[in-house]
Amino acid sequence: MRKIEHIGIAVKDLDSSCDLYEKLLNTTCYKKEEVASEGVNTAFFKTGGNKIELLSATNEDSPIAKFLEKRGEGIHHIAFDVADILAEMERLKGEGFTLLNEQPKKGADNKLVCFLHPKGTNGVLIELCQEIKTT
Amino acid sequence: MRKIEHIGIAVKDLDSSCDLYEKLLNTTCYKKEEVASEGVNTAFFKTGGNKIELLSATNEDSPIAKFLEKRGEGIHHIAFDVADILAEMERLKGEGFTLLNEQPKKGADNKLVCFLHPKGTNGVLIELCQEIKTT
Repeated sequence: MRKIEHIGIAVKDLDSSCDLYEKLLNTTCYKKEEVASEGVNTAFFKTGGNKIELLSATNEDSPIAKFLEKRGEGIHHIAFDVADILAEMERLKGEGFTLLNEQPKKGADNKLVCFLHPKGTNGVLIELCQEIKTT
Repeated sequence: MRKIEHIGIAVKDLDSSCDLYEKLLNTTCYKKEEVASEGVNTAFFKTGGNKIELLSATNEDSPIAKFLEKRGEGIHHIAFDVADILAEMERLKGEGFTLLNEQPKKGADNKLVCFLHPKGTNGVLIELCQEIKTT
């Protein structure tokens, strides 16, 4: 857990929310990316050394579609940058946290990711992410 | 909006959540502080250049008590560090955002703070905070 990499925010309409967050953060969106395997469209903003990620659903089975239906728009997860995702997954399992995926999976923004079950973290969905090194 | 200053997480029991977040973040809580005017107890953790703030309610009228009743435990707000809170409040009002307090108020951790109405920010409670300089 080196630092907060990004905060993920679930939104209904990515384009209008993008305009809004450009005004709020006083900066422009620097990347939009679809993660088809997760059923999400994403938009990224830089703020200091962290990022804000807006997420909208691309289909009804998307975790974001389910979140919006249950909770409405709002903060969806906090992602922490880790140096070695496998080691951090092992450490957290040893501490009693429940992983939502036993193997790292490919996320947005060139990352390997793993989520922790929010029931074990005071209702907060925590993502671990490690940058994929391209050699 | 220079950077994310902290993420606020609403919890029922501060002490047990403190233990949990020490394991999660692999770091110790460095400060606990009551903000009597807001009806909250807080606990802070450093993670990279940002902080995590756990918040519990000290009375039934606390905004945290109401949040817990309505939403349960989870992420409560994102706080952004600003250099000049009055200027940023003016800028955001000009952009159409609604401020929850028209004047900055004293928050935890030696900060002047102002909140934006979450209805105007995709359901996200945004806090602006400026460090109070002691000369």
